[in-house]
Amino acid sequence: MAGTPVRVALLGCGTVGTEVVRLLTGQAADLAARVGAPVELVGVAVRRADRHRDVPAGLLTTDALGLVSRDDVDVVVEVVGGIEPTRQWLLAALRAGKSVVTANKALLAEAQGELFAAADASGADLYFEAAVAGAIPLLRPLRESLAGDRITRVMGIVNGTTNFILSAMEETGAGYQEALSEAARLGYAEADPTADVDGYDAAAKAAILASLAFHTRVTMGDVHREGISAVTPADVLAARALDRTIKLLAICERVVGEDGTESVSARVHPAMIPRSHPLAGVGGAFNAVFVEAEAAGQLMFYGQGAGGAPTASAVLGDLVAVARNRVAGGRGPRESAYADLAARPIAQASTRYHISLDVADRAGVLAAVAAVFAQHDVSIAAVRQEGRTQDASLVVVTHRAPDAALRSTVDKIAGLPFVNAVVSVMRVEGEDQ
Amino acid sequence: MAGTPVRVALLGCGTVGTEVVRLLTGQAADLAARVGAPVELVGVAVRRADRHRDVPAGLLTTDALGLVSRDDVDVVVEVVGGIEPTRQWLLAALRAGKSVVTANKALLAEAQGELFAAADASGADLYFEAAVAGAIPLLRPLRESLAGDRITRVMGIVNGTTNFILSAMEETGAGYQEALSEAARLGYAEADPTADVDGYDAAAKAAILASLAFHTRVTMGDVHREGISAVTPADVLAARALDRTIKLLAICERVVGEDGTESVSARVHPAMIPRSHPLAGVGGAFNAVFVEAEAAGQLMFYGQGAGGAPTASAVLGDLVAVARNRVAGGRGPRESAYADLAARPIAQASTRYHISLDVADRAGVLAAVAAVFAQHDVSIAAVRQEGRTQDASLVVVTHRAPDAALRSTVDKIAGLPFVNAVVSVMRVEGEDQ
Repeated sequence: MAGTPVRVALLGCGTVGTEVVRLLTGQAADLAARVGAPVELVGVAVRRADRHRDVPAGLLTTDALGLVSRDDVDVVVEVVGGIEPTRQWLLAALRAGKSVVTANKALLAEAQGELFAAADASGADLYFEAAVAGAIPLLRPLRESLAGDRITRVMGIVNGTTNFILSAMEETGAGYQEALSEAARLGYAEADPTADVDGYDAAAKAAILASLAFHTRVTMGDVHREGISAVTPADVLAARALDRTIKLLAICERVVGEDGTESVSARVHPAMIPRSHPLAGVGGAFNAVFVEAEAAGQLMFYGQGAGGAPTASAVLGDLVAVARNRVAGGRGPRESAYADLAARPIAQASTRYHISLDVADRAGVLAAVAAVFAQHDVSIAAVRQEGRTQDASLVVVTHRAPDAALRSTVDKIAGLPFVNAVVSVMRVEGEDQ
Repeated sequence: MAGTPVRVALLGCGTVGTEVVRLLTGQAADLAARVGAPVELVGVAVRRADRHRDVPAGLLTTDALGLVSRDDVDVVVEVVGGIEPTRQWLLAALRAGKSVVTANKALLAEAQGELFAAADASGADLYFEAAVAGAIPLLRPLRESLAGDRITRVMGIVNGTTNFILSAMEETGAGYQEALSEAARLGYAEADPTADVDGYDAAAKAAILASLAFHTRVTMGDVHREGISAVTPADVLAARALDRTIKLLAICERVVGEDGTESVSARVHPAMIPRSHPLAGVGGAFNAVFVEAEAAGQLMFYGQGAGGAPTASAVLGDLVAVARNRVAGGRGPRESAYADLAARPIAQASTRYHISLDVADRAGVLAAVAAVFAQHDVSIAAVRQEGRTQDASLVVVTHRAPDAALRSTVDKIAGLPFVNAVVSVMRVEGEDQ
């Protein structure tokens, strides 16, 4: 294959990195034909050089910064993760005009502006398909295929660990801690599961998705985040009674205010969705993302959201793209943040609540509860009351209302004398009302 | 917005073209920000200039060849369809170095090599996301996101008209002609429905998908094509009895022969798929495509496959891409046909059959039928026999076998003396056996 080789430095050689090396070498002839030039691995930065027998020893180094600064490196592929020192390595690479392919969602959700500015200054490419939803081609469609459309909403299941835990709670009736232990035992949850179960991972992905969808820089701090640790078996039962299921959702919405001003609502929280919703059937390690755009309508993307090989597939796709750009002398899309929309606080987000109460079974209870909703200007979509000897179960599902109003309503109701307990409070998504 | 304008000529102003004009003008500021330069519509070629009141009269022309040859045109967007004279217009544009965005599946399935060669010679871009599955970003993922992976299979519902008819037959028990009339009445079928119901439309899309997935030039002539006009209510009932449903599928497979030689099987035919398969739930005008790749695993893309606005969304996405390439001085991916795999004839394709027979209910019938399968080396996966007074219903589902062997088996069985009728013969897909 003619053409000057495109020389690649790999940072990190864990599960994903090992798979990247395997694909790069195993498919060398195909990659060269697709790029128009050979793609050569010239160095691999690792923490401990004696632990990587699959990689030729001559390629290994523990000096990542030294590697990205070498003159014989054209493209840097980063699968280390974390914010520091990775940020410094990628900035050094981009400043030196080397294109970067990264799977690092946490870093992008924090420092995308800085990284894109460095890429822009030197004319380098910055690609990161693997950072969200693993192998699913999702960022390229948002950045490119839908670049002539107006995206209104992105909603998806983007974290496999929490999806596994919620599915287990639903299938076995287990509590959160029990389901988490089972997930850890099966390798679906890390020893420290905080990033997954508290929604940090999903929030970083929501920031990246919102940035691309709405041409606005959205960072972690702009994303409202609730994890799944507060989800109870009572919530699961309450959902089931209404033919719904609970999923941890990343939701990014374009909100048009009454004065026409647009803003972006980005949030991660558990929510009930109808069992008939396509996202309801997404189980285990799979991810799926719904996108709604004005001209395109509803789109769904589905596939494996994690794992060495799927993530490596996304990395290699980006690597082929930046290598092609090098060969053709062009560039991929830059950061598109011109719209510069404000982030809408969760209090102003328009959501729906499902509220399950344990109340005394006597006259006037429903009237009193309904009055609290009315006082807060929250419209009720459905009510279900079931008597049980002395007490009763009262379930209320609201229409869309500002989140702050819903919270205040619930607080007030919790304090009513005849309300024994607020059994479950959960947002409802996937139904337009 | 700084930057020399990117000047666009539009060929065709029907349903899709009108929507393209609307989005181009209505979103002008957004498009300029995303491209980095204004995108200007400088001419619209139509058949009759007096029928397009929505378009400024000064832009209209009936001379398409003249329009694409103008010096002040940078990009040509084609939504006319058909092979001639469209082919000449696009070749003229590409030869003159103008990038082309087209939704023309028939032309691409016939003349992709010629068009890409012209694009390559002048360094122009050729994009065609709208040619397959309307608004669903599918070709860009195949061409770019999965460029570092090895795709093994693409299987999808890519024609809304036939999907509507098959759904109606299933829901109402109607025959094919009745369901077709209903589809025509509701605007889901053309006055001449041949292209849809005989599978030509789906076959063109299969050729395009197979070309991109397998880096091989696949044309219409390489695609085995069967339409839905032979599907009977008996087939629908037979499918239902086994908890399956009938869909018109476009299937593109990479086949590795016993000697390691690879080839491509591309085919369009109705098939039974299990009701639990994600494609089974895809109804009406929606399209969905499954992609399987070695590293990425299973992916699914779902969305609206036709209609003015969804198709225009895909066209605009491509337009932004080629305009960005103009501004950045680069190029999009070229034709990738280096693998140059042979097309595998349908006779050698490995498929499964569902065969429903009406037989005399007497001893030895099953043994005789089973013997015919064994003679043709076709392995039986499941058998179900149900007696009815004198006759019996016998259903056989096979494992995968060469299509030619399956056909011969059915021919032979049809001639057996105790076989009253072959009630239904249908391929089975979506189950790995």
